[in-house]
Amino acid sequence: MCGDMAKVREIKRIAIVGAGAVGGYYGARLAQAGMDVHFLLRSDYAHVKDYGMVVESVAGDFELSEVGCAQTSEEIGPVDLVVIAWKTTSNRHYDRVIAPLLHEHSQILTLQNGLGNVEALARIFGSERIFGGLCFVCINRTGPGRMVHSASGLVRVGEYRPDGSGRLAYLVSLLKSGGIDCQGVENLEKAQWMKLVWNIPFNGLAISEGGVDTQVLLDTPGVEARIRRIMKEVQAVAWALGHRIADAFIEKQIDVTRPMGAYRPSSMIDYVEGREVEVDAIWREPVRRAHQLGVEVPEVMVLLTEIESRLDERGN
Amino acid sequence: MCGDMAKVREIKRIAIVGAGAVGGYYGARLAQAGMDVHFLLRSDYAHVKDYGMVVESVAGDFELSEVGCAQTSEEIGPVDLVVIAWKTTSNRHYDRVIAPLLHEHSQILTLQNGLGNVEALARIFGSERIFGGLCFVCINRTGPGRMVHSASGLVRVGEYRPDGSGRLAYLVSLLKSGGIDCQGVENLEKAQWMKLVWNIPFNGLAISEGGVDTQVLLDTPGVEARIRRIMKEVQAVAWALGHRIADAFIEKQIDVTRPMGAYRPSSMIDYVEGREVEVDAIWREPVRRAHQLGVEVPEVMVLLTEIESRLDERGN
Repeated sequence: MCGDMAKVREIKRIAIVGAGAVGGYYGARLAQAGMDVHFLLRSDYAHVKDYGMVVESVAGDFELSEVGCAQTSEEIGPVDLVVIAWKTTSNRHYDRVIAPLLHEHSQILTLQNGLGNVEALARIFGSERIFGGLCFVCINRTGPGRMVHSASGLVRVGEYRPDGSGRLAYLVSLLKSGGIDCQGVENLEKAQWMKLVWNIPFNGLAISEGGVDTQVLLDTPGVEARIRRIMKEVQAVAWALGHRIADAFIEKQIDVTRPMGAYRPSSMIDYVEGREVEVDAIWREPVRRAHQLGVEVPEVMVLLTEIESRLDERGN
Repeated sequence: MCGDMAKVREIKRIAIVGAGAVGGYYGARLAQAGMDVHFLLRSDYAHVKDYGMVVESVAGDFELSEVGCAQTSEEIGPVDLVVIAWKTTSNRHYDRVIAPLLHEHSQILTLQNGLGNVEALARIFGSERIFGGLCFVCINRTGPGRMVHSASGLVRVGEYRPDGSGRLAYLVSLLKSGGIDCQGVENLEKAQWMKLVWNIPFNGLAISEGGVDTQVLLDTPGVEARIRRIMKEVQAVAWALGHRIADAFIEKQIDVTRPMGAYRPSSMIDYVEGREVEVDAIWREPVRRAHQLGVEVPEVMVLLTEIESRLDERGN
C-alpha cells in the first residue's frame, strides 16, 4: 500500500492551537463554515467563551457567538487535524501540548513562520503526518477574540513528506470549503524559501531600523538597495537547495510591498510591543542552513547581528 | 518509494528508558556487546554511575564498570533507537520523556507488557516508527544496577505497521549481535495475544489467589481448570481478530509452566511489594477489545474483578 487513496483520511474534528491573529482568523473562518473547530486558548479563554469571536475582514465581516474552546489539550482530546499557529518561540512545548490532541491518524498543519517547525514536528510526531502552510495575509488581533483582516489571505500548503496520495488535495479543498484562499504546493521547502525572500529583509529591517513599517523602509535612502542584496542572498541559498527562484520574483516582492503602505511586519510588532521575536525561525535557522550548504550570506548575518543588538538593548 | 531498503536506518545510538529488570538486563547485554547505550535512570542513577551494572545470568555473568546513564532525556538527546521498558502504568509520561530522545528517523521499541502500548506510541509519535517486543524471560532486579537472569530470554519483535522494508530483519539482527535471543514476527498483534494466553491467567491468578507463585497455582485444586477456561477465552478473542491460536498452544503453556517451579509473575511481585499493577494493559484493555469484537469473556471479567478487589484491599 503506497501512494493510494487509503491514506486520505477524512477530517472532521479540528483543533486550533495558538489563537493569536493567524489562528484566530483562520479558525474562525472554518468554524463559520460549520466545521467542528476547537480553539485552545489561554488568556482569551474567558472572553471568547462568554462573547465568542468577531472578525472584521476585507473578505466579509462575521461574528461567532458560540465558539468551541478549551484551556487544555486534554479537554479537547483527539482531533483529525491540529492547526498550529502559535509563535515559534513556544515550540519547546510541542510535545506536551500537541500529544493529547492526537489519534493515530491525526494530521498536523503548522502555519508558523520561518524554518524548523515542520522538522521539529516530524522529529516528535512522525514525518508522515506533517503539513506546512505559508500564510500571505495581513491580520491583527485587536483584542480578545477580535481579529481585523485587512488584506490577502492566501495559504500555500505542502506536505513535509509528499506521499503521492490525494491527501494534500483533500486538505486544500477542505480549507477552501472553509472559506480560506488556499493553494497546494508540490515542494514545501521551496515555498518556505520564497516566503523568506520577503520575511528576512522586511521583518528584519523593520526591527533593525528601530521599529518602523514597510513604507518607512522603502522611503529610507539606501534601504531598498539593502533589501535587494539580502533577497539575493536568500535566493542563492534557495538555489543551492535546488529551488530556482527567479530574479523577477525578487522584483515582484518589492513591487507588491509598495501598495501595502504603512504595513507593520509581525516581527516588528512583536519587537515594539516587547514580546519575544522569532529570531531562530526567521534568521538564525536560514543562516545555519546557508552555512551547511557552504553559501555565504554576509548581508543576512549583519542584519541578524543588528536584530540581536536591538533585542539586547530592549533587554530581551 | 515504498517498501524499499531506504527505510532501513542504521541504528547506532540507543536509549533504554525504564531500567528495571527488563530494561536493565537487555540494555546491559547491548552495552556489553559494545553498542552505544544510554540508560535513563532515576533512583538507580547515582549507584549505576559510580559502580556500573552487574548481571548474573544463565547465559553468562558479566559486569559493566562504566555505564552511559543520565537522569533526563534531554541529557541523552536524540538516539536512533528508543527501547521502552518501564511499567505501563507510567505511559502517561510518554510524550514528555520520549520526545527529547527522537530525531526524525528514530525508531521506538516497546518491551512493555500487555496491550495498548504500541497504539499509544503510534498515536503520539507516528505509526511508522513503532516496534513491539514480547519478552519471554525470567529476570529480577535485586538491587540498583543488579539483575539476576534465571531463565530464557527470547524477545519476539514485530512492527506496528509492517512496511515491507528490511528494517525488522535489521533490528532483529542488531539485537542478536547484542547477545539477545531474538525473533522477528510477521504479525505483532498475534504475538501479543499469544503472550496474553499465559499472562492473563497466570499473572492474574497469582494476585487473586493472594500473591502466590505458579507452582502454588498449579497445585491448588481447581485452579488449573480455571487457567484453561481463561486461556480458552483469550484464544477466542484472538480468533475473532483472525489470529488462529491452536488448542495445542494452550496445553503447551501449561506444560512449560510446570518445570518453572515456584516462578513469581511480575504482576504478582508488583502486588506483594505494594507497587502499581499493570491492570489496564494486561486485563482491562484485552476485555475492552473482546467486547468491541462482541466476544464474551466472563472468566476473564471475574478474574479482573478479583484483581481489582485485591488491589482495593491493599489500598491501591
